[in-house]
Amino acid sequence: MHIAITGAAGFLGQRLVRQLVKRGELDGRAIRRLTLIDQVEPPAPDAGAIEIVSRALDITTPGGLDSVLAERPDVIHHLAAVVSSAAEADLDLGMKVNFDATRSLLEGCRRHGLAETRLVMASSVAAYGGELPEVLDDMTAVQPQNSYGTQKAMCELLINDYSRRGLVDGRVLRLPTIVIRPGRPNAAASSFASSILREPLSGEEAICPVPLDQELFVLSPSRVIEALILAAEVPGEALGAFRALMLPGITVSVAEMLDTLREVAGDEAVARVRHEPDERIRSLVASWPARFDTARADRLGFRRDADFGEIVDAYLAERS
Amino acid sequence: MHIAITGAAGFLGQRLVRQLVKRGELDGRAIRRLTLIDQVEPPAPDAGAIEIVSRALDITTPGGLDSVLAERPDVIHHLAAVVSSAAEADLDLGMKVNFDATRSLLEGCRRHGLAETRLVMASSVAAYGGELPEVLDDMTAVQPQNSYGTQKAMCELLINDYSRRGLVDGRVLRLPTIVIRPGRPNAAASSFASSILREPLSGEEAICPVPLDQELFVLSPSRVIEALILAAEVPGEALGAFRALMLPGITVSVAEMLDTLREVAGDEAVARVRHEPDERIRSLVASWPARFDTARADRLGFRRDADFGEIVDAYLAERS
Repeated sequence: MHIAITGAAGFLGQRLVRQLVKRGELDGRAIRRLTLIDQVEPPAPDAGAIEIVSRALDITTPGGLDSVLAERPDVIHHLAAVVSSAAEADLDLGMKVNFDATRSLLEGCRRHGLAETRLVMASSVAAYGGELPEVLDDMTAVQPQNSYGTQKAMCELLINDYSRRGLVDGRVLRLPTIVIRPGRPNAAASSFASSILREPLSGEEAICPVPLDQELFVLSPSRVIEALILAAEVPGEALGAFRALMLPGITVSVAEMLDTLREVAGDEAVARVRHEPDERIRSLVASWPARFDTARADRLGFRRDADFGEIVDAYLAERS
Repeated sequence: MHIAITGAAGFLGQRLVRQLVKRGELDGRAIRRLTLIDQVEPPAPDAGAIEIVSRALDITTPGGLDSVLAERPDVIHHLAAVVSSAAEADLDLGMKVNFDATRSLLEGCRRHGLAETRLVMASSVAAYGGELPEVLDDMTAVQPQNSYGTQKAMCELLINDYSRRGLVDGRVLRLPTIVIRPGRPNAAASSFASSILREPLSGEEAICPVPLDQELFVLSPSRVIEALILAAEVPGEALGAFRALMLPGITVSVAEMLDTLREVAGDEAVARVRHEPDERIRSLVASWPARFDTARADRLGFRRDADFGEIVDAYLAERS
């Protein structure tokens, strides 16, 4: 089993690599090789019997992945992407990295006859937008209100069509908001969702720009990694008529997140969260759907966190 | 008012040109110029005071429309496309004509600063597919099961994003099955829908490959042309959060179509329809949605035919 990972130097990429090394197998077959691809050579963990090859490759050059595709990987985890704020700030960059590079990857699979290769792409809840129903399901229209979501939705359609035509065996996961991300606050509108837990748990202050009753649809990093692996294991036909699906998550309000923080770290931790309403962030976050019926993904075995307490506990266990 | 039309030599293009010449105005402004674009110079009708320029241009060459865009048309009707059977037979051709050419057109509008230009693209009911609900509405997911529908759905997303970013003022109409098309039977799976009326009305035989209870969602050619004109007249904001919408149509079964034929032309006309079940066509046509709640389009003033009798009467009036 040879698995290639684009965006392997990123947060999810590095976690996926570590988890694959720890498991040593995928879909019942021993992992022999991992090819880690990013703009710079991705760090490679000590992997015992698994051969790890780190490559600095430009996925935006047509054919840029040919040397990897020629080795006929069994699975490709395509995680490389320009994040939503960057795609919004620079349409050309977003189209080039998020859309054109995915199309080139699909064409590469076609050219190399990789009909059996399981291509797993990460899409996002940001693909949804517009006048949405109270609860979304697998048949809710994708009407993105940002360029990142647009580019991801176009990739979903293309991966579905290439899969339907038997040119590759694609699967796309729409990821919920991932919490708790490690690191520092950043420019992403969703940054606060990790920050209001992570910083107080480290004795630092955090800013909450949205009202307490704002709901979010969230999933922990370890569940996302589990999902990326399961997505490469389920039979393509099991996905039904469309190769993209929304991952299960849990719906939590900011108030519930802070209640959990209180249970875990007391009133003094909650007091470290300053409430500074930010209308731009509030309206953006309010436009994200927070309630989903993910029946199809549930049936396929994708799992949500039990509750927000489990997400915080897992974060603390990893940090220690 | 300067209107440019791609695919102007086609069935819809030629009808649109004639109707625009007949009206002489669009959105309350006199039409001064029509630029007709196709692979070969489109035929131009006698147009009185309206200047008609016919151009043979290759829209698949990036910048191929620059000479037209430099004249800053107020409206572009983008009808050029490779039909569904051709797009299914040749993925590269479909991507090039249906998707890349549309993207080039959007980029051309961006480069020429045509933020106010109203770009109207024809999409299709073929964008829908998969496990659909009984009645579709504006929030039903687009999960195409053919490359034509995939390419059109990708264009919808891109036009929506370019419009949201203020780079062009786009609108996309998903067309129902158009009946009664003039001409002869062709390779399209929907060909029978026109043929089982058109041929018997001319005293010829026709073949019906689907069961009598098969339903279709149909619209007459003249209503489609009305819709293409109205789409250029409605304010972009009126379309709401997504720039593509399904046009109203009427749901008719093959039995109802033949009942109408009987009323108009008698039993001997109906007897000219031979029933020769074709499993390939049957299963394809059965996958097309036939029932829509088009509330948004209805509110915007798009109109369906009153009933199937009106469609047949209009065809006979035009033919005579």
